[in-house]
Amino acid sequence: MSPVSTASFSGDRFHVHYWIRGTEADARQQAEQLCLEQTVELPKELLVEPCLREQIIGRVESIQPDESEGYVVTISFASELLGNEFPQFLNVLFGMASLHPHLQLRGLEPSPLLLEMFDGPQFGAQAIRAQCLAPTRPLLCGVLKPLGLSIRELATLAYTYALGGLDLIKDDQGLMNQPFCRFEERVTHCTEAVARANQQTGGHTLYIPNITGPNTLLIDRATFARAAGAGGVLICAGLTGFDAIQIVASHHHVRLPIMMHPAGLGSFFVHRSSGIAPSILLGLLPRLAGADISILPYHDLDSPLLGQDDYVLAAYESGRDLPSIKPLLLAIGGQIQEDKINEIAALFHNQIIIIVGSALLREPHAIRETCQRLRTMVDRLT
Amino acid sequence: MSPVSTASFSGDRFHVHYWIRGTEADARQQAEQLCLEQTVELPKELLVEPCLREQIIGRVESIQPDESEGYVVTISFASELLGNEFPQFLNVLFGMASLHPHLQLRGLEPSPLLLEMFDGPQFGAQAIRAQCLAPTRPLLCGVLKPLGLSIRELATLAYTYALGGLDLIKDDQGLMNQPFCRFEERVTHCTEAVARANQQTGGHTLYIPNITGPNTLLIDRATFARAAGAGGVLICAGLTGFDAIQIVASHHHVRLPIMMHPAGLGSFFVHRSSGIAPSILLGLLPRLAGADISILPYHDLDSPLLGQDDYVLAAYESGRDLPSIKPLLLAIGGQIQEDKINEIAALFHNQIIIIVGSALLREPHAIRETCQRLRTMVDRLT
Repeated sequence: MSPVSTASFSGDRFHVHYWIRGTEADARQQAEQLCLEQTVELPKELLVEPCLREQIIGRVESIQPDESEGYVVTISFASELLGNEFPQFLNVLFGMASLHPHLQLRGLEPSPLLLEMFDGPQFGAQAIRAQCLAPTRPLLCGVLKPLGLSIRELATLAYTYALGGLDLIKDDQGLMNQPFCRFEERVTHCTEAVARANQQTGGHTLYIPNITGPNTLLIDRATFARAAGAGGVLICAGLTGFDAIQIVASHHHVRLPIMMHPAGLGSFFVHRSSGIAPSILLGLLPRLAGADISILPYHDLDSPLLGQDDYVLAAYESGRDLPSIKPLLLAIGGQIQEDKINEIAALFHNQIIIIVGSALLREPHAIRETCQRLRTMVDRLT
Repeated sequence: MSPVSTASFSGDRFHVHYWIRGTEADARQQAEQLCLEQTVELPKELLVEPCLREQIIGRVESIQPDESEGYVVTISFASELLGNEFPQFLNVLFGMASLHPHLQLRGLEPSPLLLEMFDGPQFGAQAIRAQCLAPTRPLLCGVLKPLGLSIRELATLAYTYALGGLDLIKDDQGLMNQPFCRFEERVTHCTEAVARANQQTGGHTLYIPNITGPNTLLIDRATFARAAGAGGVLICAGLTGFDAIQIVASHHHVRLPIMMHPAGLGSFFVHRSSGIAPSILLGLLPRLAGADISILPYHDLDSPLLGQDDYVLAAYESGRDLPSIKPLLLAIGGQIQEDKINEIAALFHNQIIIIVGSALLREPHAIRETCQRLRTMVDRLT
């Protein structure tokens, strides 16, 4: 076999941390296998050429014991394997590794070349905060729902939320482009309603419609949203692929902040022994892909899905210093009630968008007052 | 709140089966919660209007005990919730449900309206077989790898495989568009090599390049592949989103069979207590999205990932009678050695594409002879 020349490789390699269950010997064996599976998919004895062994396959850099019945192995990969394309990046990170029931993608150390490939957030955490005139306090985000309201009623709700002083208003992820809830009509009416409220109050509420849909329509929807005056766009990367974020982020006519919603992504982190750690899946990956905001799920179930450690790690990944990649602003949502707001704000040191959905609708005739009360709460948290 | 009119709903509802761990009471409670979570995301007491309760939210149709410590609940959803868009279909099926660690999407009964929304395979199992002049026997598919070979060497490999009589030759999923393995150059040389071999042998080998990449480039790559004379295209839906399949399948200038690869999808089925059953994830969903072929993983690990039951169910979902949706042809791959071919063929009653990768490369100077020997084996299986 005649491989490409080693001259095709700069030596730049990024490092990936995988947790593997078992003994050190198990971990070493699986790590060696991963080096092959994620790249050449051939047994090592069939790789006779030095370039294949030295550049193309992964390289085990270290194996460290972990407190939880396993080992963390660090594998480096040549950045040239990625071809500057996000789907290929996902493939090298986790393509065939996803088939292992006792292996979790736990960390990633981007290399200089990798950081050049991906632009990261267009705006980032600070710019979102500046737009909301809220440099330090937690931000509040309301949700337009339920699916099934008429567009007129959704717009009234948006108007009321904005009058009440919420910083952001997002479509529920179920609002897409149903025959009874068409995207363009919804965005037209809701942006108009929010603009009207902003004019009345002098506020700066941003409306973030859900553009999730066929990837062929993403740019049309994002462009429409921008022209209508939306303040950002919502994308469910678990339904569209992470690539959808990159497509919208890199399109020069759109230029709107992107908020990622985790619908469909749960299977990657419902078990700690497999999948992708939430700090990477919902923190670093959307940040690299170009999301400005990423939503963490809060207590959707009887027992918390994510623990305090996961939130702390996600906060770290969203904000840690990466040359040329702006910080992403985390959001958190899922039946958050009023009495949890202070606790959540403290956990994230106020660097968080708190999404309040049903909590705003419990008093249907006092929605504006509820918003104002919550806004007063977060105004005190600086 | 003023919802849309019930007149917006035809009454057409599709049925989804979820396995839920726990007692019957647990299952019932979670099923009721799912009816809300997958649609309105509001507590039921906040839904005062009849249309919301009757049409928009899911409806528990039945709860049946299951042999494995749980219950199978069947929930129906109004087809109008989908707005004819695949990402929204995924959202209603499994968006927020993905966050449950003890819930598995296990089955789906499409409704007439749902089947009208999605076209299914352009060609289907029979047409692929007809192209290969193999109406009944198992088909054989070789893999171009390893990543790191020069394009000239990949083309030589393709030529050798085709001379050896393989029915299909696919790119390894790691071959995308690397600087040392550019898509267009690879496709040009490999299609030419396969065409030359076909001309020499009178054979009908199809070459299936991997078009996985940014969704903005999918149609360009598929169109290029078609113009070059490729016999199909490979898409890793776990890296691009399932929508990529639909985009390519519904594009009238492409018209090439689509093969789906499971890279990145493993986390949905490595645990039986969560995620999506492989028969649905790798059988029915790609079929509805428009894949003609879907690859099942075989024994990638020390212990089999999928059991015989999973294969039987996947075969059922790929071929069962659905009005206007053609059957999909299953493929299976993952270190399949020669001595397993008869057993695999028998398990699938010959309705299978057997992917042989490393098994063809073990004798580097006798690759053509190995292909011929395997082809003779499957020729006997009718």
